[in-house]
Amino acid sequence: MSLLVVGTVAFDAIETPFGKTDKIVGGAATYICMSTSFFSRNINLVSVVGDDFPENEIKKLNKKGINTSGLQIKKGEKTFFWSGKYHNNMNSRDTIETQLNVLEKFDPIVPNEFKNSEYLMLGNLMPSVQKRVLDQMNKRPKLIVLDTMNFWMDHFMEDLKKALKNVDVLTINDEEARQLSEEYSLMKASRKILEMGPKYLIIKKGEHGAFLFDKNKVFFAPALPLEEVLDPTGAGDSFAGGFIGYIAKTKDISFENMKRAVLYGTVMASFTVEKFGTENLSVTTEDEIEGRLKRLKKISQIS
Amino acid sequence: MSLLVVGTVAFDAIETPFGKTDKIVGGAATYICMSTSFFSRNINLVSVVGDDFPENEIKKLNKKGINTSGLQIKKGEKTFFWSGKYHNNMNSRDTIETQLNVLEKFDPIVPNEFKNSEYLMLGNLMPSVQKRVLDQMNKRPKLIVLDTMNFWMDHFMEDLKKALKNVDVLTINDEEARQLSEEYSLMKASRKILEMGPKYLIIKKGEHGAFLFDKNKVFFAPALPLEEVLDPTGAGDSFAGGFIGYIAKTKDISFENMKRAVLYGTVMASFTVEKFGTENLSVTTEDEIEGRLKRLKKISQIS
Repeated sequence: MSLLVVGTVAFDAIETPFGKTDKIVGGAATYICMSTSFFSRNINLVSVVGDDFPENEIKKLNKKGINTSGLQIKKGEKTFFWSGKYHNNMNSRDTIETQLNVLEKFDPIVPNEFKNSEYLMLGNLMPSVQKRVLDQMNKRPKLIVLDTMNFWMDHFMEDLKKALKNVDVLTINDEEARQLSEEYSLMKASRKILEMGPKYLIIKKGEHGAFLFDKNKVFFAPALPLEEVLDPTGAGDSFAGGFIGYIAKTKDISFENMKRAVLYGTVMASFTVEKFGTENLSVTTEDEIEGRLKRLKKISQIS
Repeated sequence: MSLLVVGTVAFDAIETPFGKTDKIVGGAATYICMSTSFFSRNINLVSVVGDDFPENEIKKLNKKGINTSGLQIKKGEKTFFWSGKYHNNMNSRDTIETQLNVLEKFDPIVPNEFKNSEYLMLGNLMPSVQKRVLDQMNKRPKLIVLDTMNFWMDHFMEDLKKALKNVDVLTINDEEARQLSEEYSLMKASRKILEMGPKYLIIKKGEHGAFLFDKNKVFFAPALPLEEVLDPTGAGDSFAGGFIGYIAKTKDISFENMKRAVLYGTVMASFTVEKFGTENLSVTTEDEIEGRLKRLKKISQIS
């Protein structure tokens, strides 16, 4: 199997009630790739950075089996930078600064060797850029997952709706599902959204778990109760990475298998939020992943 | 088996984004009793109303098997009245008016015939009143469940902590668990609260489900995804009623059985919130309850 991941590779500066970081490596594609790397060694990355991005960070990705030949390095330009501050409840945040830099004119070029990737993860990015990647594929991937956020709904709703027509799975959070569907009830929202194109919808609710919908079925996975959450940044991306990684590994796109993939996504997100940035994803082991999966299954088990 | 329920019987006037009611019958004990009545025909109520409370409302309770000989009717006094308005997200509300009326000097008198009740549900009330009921029992009930809210934590924390020393199960929502424990993480909060007296803790998260904790175990039940929520009033009380009702019916206070009881509580709350007041609880059938239980079990099932 081969998996193509598109999304941002970025610098983040993060402040939460529990601490703050200087510029650390972040970005949707970074979290997705690091999370996916536990399930697969055939991951293709398409993204862009400036020449301020440290080479050893790229090498770290390569060591995890991530092919970075689709990572454009723009000479004389700077990497996308985001800084944000989380509020006390960790459920909301303020953006302090966004420097688009290389993202401003990002034209994603999918290398020929990537154009037959069997699975495609369109990480959070401008919808027209996501669409442009899709259009370059030689054949339709077996499963296309798109992650997005409220910012694109606020400013590029039409582009987003166009992109949605061509994807299999959409992952968004509950507020975004409400915004996209103009329905408050998530049951009603899911039906409306499933009419926009995606065959499957994942609604992420952070510490409150995640829903998986298709036209006739609904599955719910609780979040793993954690002792401490230090930094929610990248949780959704890590979730998406675990989800698509497990699907690509098992080559099974049935609803039943997607349920398992949602649990793996939940587990990957649980590691991410316990430390700042990708710190925890860097040191997590497969045994720890399986251990948490077991724990997660157990907390809603009933005899 | 016999179950003693203590709590308010009240008039409510409710406004939500979906409608508004005149004075309707509400109160914690009303919701608890109506919910419990699906599981048992041996329910004893201790509460107080004024002589403005309609006799036919009392008869409705009697028809459901609720013994109202412990319901004091105060001549020349008025029933407790609460009016509130829910915000758009239905998760928060403003109290518009509270008239304590008969509650102000409520001295709960447990009739002799109730003093050997095997199960005790202390519905949301002033903690010292809850404690006074407990003290009148001839022998310790097999299971004592106490429900409370932030208001009592704000103003009567010491009384509440005294009452907690004597109960088996505490039911509160997530914000209240944080307030009571002074911990943000619900895992940490649960440990602290379980040291205050209760052997079991239920943290209700509304549309986000409910946790059941004991010292070593954790169980999570999702809420039932609903097409529409009209009025959240009484959801927590209906949950408590379903929980204690199922326990009392099955006479099994093991953690495994409490998990099932949490599911029944979740189902009973799901009926309540779909209509205003107790409207839906009045017409629900046992078949509908079992149907929803099945659906609820299914949404987190994984093969």
